[in-house]
Amino acid sequence: MIYADFNGSAPMHPSVREYLSKRVIDGPYANPNAIHSLGKKMGMGLEKARMSVAKNLGAKMNQIVFNSGSSEGITHVYHSVLNQTTKRTIITSGIEHSAVVQANKFYESKGFKIITVKTNPCGTICMDDFKSHFENNKSDIAMVSIMAANNETGVIQPHAEVGKLCSKNEVIFFSDTTQYIGKTDFDFCQSNMDFAVVSGHKIGAIIGSGVLLVKNPHSLIPLVFGGGQEFGKRGGTQNYIGAETLAVALEAFNEEKQRLNEINEMRLAFENKLKESFSNIVVIGDKANRLPTSTLMAYTGIHGQAVQIELESNDIFVTTSSACSDNEPETSKVLKAMGICDDIGRGVIRISFCTKVQQEHYDKIYNALFDIYSRLNKIKVS
Amino acid sequence: MIYADFNGSAPMHPSVREYLSKRVIDGPYANPNAIHSLGKKMGMGLEKARMSVAKNLGAKMNQIVFNSGSSEGITHVYHSVLNQTTKRTIITSGIEHSAVVQANKFYESKGFKIITVKTNPCGTICMDDFKSHFENNKSDIAMVSIMAANNETGVIQPHAEVGKLCSKNEVIFFSDTTQYIGKTDFDFCQSNMDFAVVSGHKIGAIIGSGVLLVKNPHSLIPLVFGGGQEFGKRGGTQNYIGAETLAVALEAFNEEKQRLNEINEMRLAFENKLKESFSNIVVIGDKANRLPTSTLMAYTGIHGQAVQIELESNDIFVTTSSACSDNEPETSKVLKAMGICDDIGRGVIRISFCTKVQQEHYDKIYNALFDIYSRLNKIKVS
Repeated sequence: MIYADFNGSAPMHPSVREYLSKRVIDGPYANPNAIHSLGKKMGMGLEKARMSVAKNLGAKMNQIVFNSGSSEGITHVYHSVLNQTTKRTIITSGIEHSAVVQANKFYESKGFKIITVKTNPCGTICMDDFKSHFENNKSDIAMVSIMAANNETGVIQPHAEVGKLCSKNEVIFFSDTTQYIGKTDFDFCQSNMDFAVVSGHKIGAIIGSGVLLVKNPHSLIPLVFGGGQEFGKRGGTQNYIGAETLAVALEAFNEEKQRLNEINEMRLAFENKLKESFSNIVVIGDKANRLPTSTLMAYTGIHGQAVQIELESNDIFVTTSSACSDNEPETSKVLKAMGICDDIGRGVIRISFCTKVQQEHYDKIYNALFDIYSRLNKIKVS
Repeated sequence: MIYADFNGSAPMHPSVREYLSKRVIDGPYANPNAIHSLGKKMGMGLEKARMSVAKNLGAKMNQIVFNSGSSEGITHVYHSVLNQTTKRTIITSGIEHSAVVQANKFYESKGFKIITVKTNPCGTICMDDFKSHFENNKSDIAMVSIMAANNETGVIQPHAEVGKLCSKNEVIFFSDTTQYIGKTDFDFCQSNMDFAVVSGHKIGAIIGSGVLLVKNPHSLIPLVFGGGQEFGKRGGTQNYIGAETLAVALEAFNEEKQRLNEINEMRLAFENKLKESFSNIVVIGDKANRLPTSTLMAYTGIHGQAVQIELESNDIFVTTSSACSDNEPETSKVLKAMGICDDIGRGVIRISFCTKVQQEHYDKIYNALFDIYSRLNKIKVS
């Protein structure tokens, strides 16, 4: 089996699997806030995990808030920032994940003005458009909310440039880093982000775990009420097992990230070989800097879902788009924002891996796709 | 080792441990919303878990919203109900968990009027006081928020009576059932509750999993934004592994709950034996109906923490109060609401089990306590 839907959900990393299976059997379990030594042991484990996660994300320990994942993190950021400001403008992009889109809609209904920055055809946000909106609304910007890397295209956004501008002008910058962290290099302190988010299940940790990174933790108000856990910033008994798996997964990524260049080359070679074989193949965002492990591509006029099903019969698992919009055989919002036509938009498949990807995976997918596109193209034209 | 802090956090149930350790090794993992067959398999597993959880909680499948635990569930209920009403009164009790207390405070700051019902010395809420507030504010009650069983005392609250009154008058009733579900019989459809909550780690499932039970799911608005997961009621890729462990844990409880009467008798005999041995021993809430597995007791004048430490040296793990307030050697808010004096309030230890408790556990704790109280009493009076 070749599992190539890591952007949708990453299977637990082998190190996490090994750690967790032993952890589950051996125990112990206790409330990390309990007074007894078992509780203190869990509490110490949690802080050890926090230290490791902080180190691997370039953050300070008190900037790490453990939670249930990115959707909660995103909601938390919006809740905390927008309930503590008199400013009323949010600058965002047209290629954000549904969680950000929904958050924007909710706060729009509460009276906030949402400005959506244009997207370039290559999949990055248009910096000229961003700068112009930024200048025109500077005194009223409650938050800039621009993702770091897109979940569908893998296109890396100019978050560093956005961050610098925000930082210089003391504007709060939240970046949805769900697809960025654990797939490429990241250093929170260097990022100029005020908030960033991690979903455990996107980086090989256990599903239901996550991190909210907060530059100024004192400014954060809780979304989830509770008994003072996470320094009063996130109620509920901490998911200490989840936090432990986050530490293991990020540590593993840190050890494997030396492969990123090699992986990037491998993926580019795979894409080029396909493009050379079929003139009708389009790799979305190939003019932009993308995540090393992510390919979104289409064969013009051949439906993505047909290809996905054919690949699956070869024991290769890809998606047509993001999990959230998979069931709609429409061109996705993200691709529409890029100005991509339906003939391509409906044809996309997404191939996404982790840092463990090997040449043989790409070879097998190439061979399968060569066969599938040759066959489907024949059906199409005949 | 005797672990007697199940109200703080339950170790994973042996069935869950067995299930999960195999699950972690074997996989598969995928996004339960993905289009491919692995995703669909996860999605079907999630719905199978939903069916099992619904069956064991006496709910319909569409009344089950999987989340990260009770603190999120509580926050969600408050958010959904109070953002959709023009009524401005919340009736609550003085013995609620911190998550409810914090939620009340937050909405008080947003202009809601919080009415706190008096507590009887036995640990139940005062129904006369409740009824009087209910009558006087009937047309303005946004929500009644009264817990089902107290986490410190184990005292079962008159939730059925509260539920009937609310239902008859079409007032929304939320009951924090965190300590109730999985410790005694529960049937959501029979409960007259509009909302109830479950924390996985309180019932032997994995930490970070949970359920929000919703009588009228169509009325619920999301707290956490996302991609339409959980019928649009809770964003974020579902914690499908957590949901699976919830199903296993509740199924196990359902099989074991025939022991509840026996366990209750066992606990009462243990408490009576202690009271007979030491005239200074007080069992908090012993005039009320309590959870079969929970004892909160004090030896007047002997500090609870001293007893807890002594018990721990006998490899017996108890707490002095709830995990949230363990670090404050003060009489807890709950005990203060019951009118309990500091001499007793500072002396409490909480012994809490699951349905697997055996006579030998109580025997060993009795023997240890007999020795400890005899010794500490000697030190105290000499």
